[in-house]
Amino acid sequence: METLRTATWIAVDWGTSNLRVWAMAGAEVIARAQSAQGMGRMTRDEFGPTLEALMVDLPVTPDTPAIACGMVGARQGWTEAPYRTIPCTTQDKTLIRVPGTSRPVHIIPGLKQPSPADVMRGEETQIAGFLALNPGWDGVICLPGTHSKWVHVSAGEVVSFQTFLTGELFALLAGHSVLRHSLNGNESRDADFDAAVSETLSRPEKLAASLFAIRAGDLLNGTSGSANRARLSGALIGAELAAAKPYWLGQQIAIIGAATQSALYARALQSQGVPATVTDADRMTLAGLTAAFRALKETI
Amino acid sequence: METLRTATWIAVDWGTSNLRVWAMAGAEVIARAQSAQGMGRMTRDEFGPTLEALMVDLPVTPDTPAIACGMVGARQGWTEAPYRTIPCTTQDKTLIRVPGTSRPVHIIPGLKQPSPADVMRGEETQIAGFLALNPGWDGVICLPGTHSKWVHVSAGEVVSFQTFLTGELFALLAGHSVLRHSLNGNESRDADFDAAVSETLSRPEKLAASLFAIRAGDLLNGTSGSANRARLSGALIGAELAAAKPYWLGQQIAIIGAATQSALYARALQSQGVPATVTDADRMTLAGLTAAFRALKETI
Repeated sequence: METLRTATWIAVDWGTSNLRVWAMAGAEVIARAQSAQGMGRMTRDEFGPTLEALMVDLPVTPDTPAIACGMVGARQGWTEAPYRTIPCTTQDKTLIRVPGTSRPVHIIPGLKQPSPADVMRGEETQIAGFLALNPGWDGVICLPGTHSKWVHVSAGEVVSFQTFLTGELFALLAGHSVLRHSLNGNESRDADFDAAVSETLSRPEKLAASLFAIRAGDLLNGTSGSANRARLSGALIGAELAAAKPYWLGQQIAIIGAATQSALYARALQSQGVPATVTDADRMTLAGLTAAFRALKETI
Repeated sequence: METLRTATWIAVDWGTSNLRVWAMAGAEVIARAQSAQGMGRMTRDEFGPTLEALMVDLPVTPDTPAIACGMVGARQGWTEAPYRTIPCTTQDKTLIRVPGTSRPVHIIPGLKQPSPADVMRGEETQIAGFLALNPGWDGVICLPGTHSKWVHVSAGEVVSFQTFLTGELFALLAGHSVLRHSLNGNESRDADFDAAVSETLSRPEKLAASLFAIRAGDLLNGTSGSANRARLSGALIGAELAAAKPYWLGQQIAIIGAATQSALYARALQSQGVPATVTDADRMTLAGLTAAFRALKETI
């Protein structure tokens, strides 16, 4: 590690499957660490030691405060950070202090929508980061992922949102269903993706039928694994866009997610004549955590 | 075993997950056996010994002929029984003899539809059984299951069919997705099922959103596991009915499947004012195998 500086605070993104930590000086990253020690399989006693062990080589002191976002604040997490209720701002000072730690650790609460019932944990921090970097922005933010989200933002508040199981469905179908035999290949196949998006976007009822059609096409016609994978991805994203149409129609769209997935969503929206700004998800997470740290400092 | 009779033939239903065998005298069952030794994990050499071992207590001789249907005739099965191409009759004499067995074993071929690409193995035998018991019947047969099928039958021929991944999707979502935490309970919840069917049947694009809504409803409102299970089932069946509408609209419908699933499909169709005849799946399988055995005898 070449830095001579010591961190002023620690940014933590602790999701179901992964733990990522950044040693920060203000808004600047000076060192980082990550592991697959997500909160999904962790008991309450393990959170503190796990975080400290991951930071052993980082330039932090035992007193450096940490700000965490993600599923770590769920009921099954380290300390429950109860959902805030929308409509509300994304910039909020109600962080939850983890009790019993020598290092100050604060968790950012998730958001809930009472009706239709919906919840998020982690995405609120990315949205706050996006708004910190784009003050005054109004529109719709799409966050592709295991549970992708469409979020209507207006005047600095989250007004409404809707979650889709698209990423998890893709993983289950690709990894565990009869389709798994027919998806070998990772070439990008834009034409197949576009056709599948178009089909389920215009005829969403075709989704259930289009899935087995991928397998049958392989059995009878030997369709390529890359094409089949593109068709599965396109069919699921098209079905999501059909349901999310009230969110994206006539709105300006920003996408926050992993690069590959974000590009697919941007391509699908483009096919409907809807331009979307693709952002860097890590940068949004860090900007959101930084905004929360600054807000916390003001209150101390 | 109280029977003094010896079987004249052996009926075999050999699917991916199960093997079922009936010792038959004409159309009458005189003894039966079954095991979880499906063809899914079997190598080619294991089929013969597995079948013989399961029949060790059945009243059959080493020469009693066997007729088999199901995935046992797939390319990865005992012997490939190439698909017959629709439109074609379900009563056909093109059985495939398994080579190298001392006992005569014949496999019933599946059916394929070139465009849109689709395949079936096993269901063709149940359809043949239904038509043997209901000569001259025209209409649409719905076969719920892991891969449910809608089959248009006219003048004794399969005219077209379409496969849906509904059962497999339910199993994946209930067993492996984030919804698995919210589905504890097995009470029947008709009102929740009906509401979910109605929602996705009329607005099929809502499927992707309705799945996460089940989880969020549990997290925020503690909705019951039984109600959630009914909603998941209803949402998936409603989406299937939306896509299969060209099959069932204005047609007479027969359902061949497991009792619980068949009742759900009949209920969902009933909600659309479509009456359906629910049949006994095992009886259809045996009637189809019996018809195939009789046709084989005529050709020998």
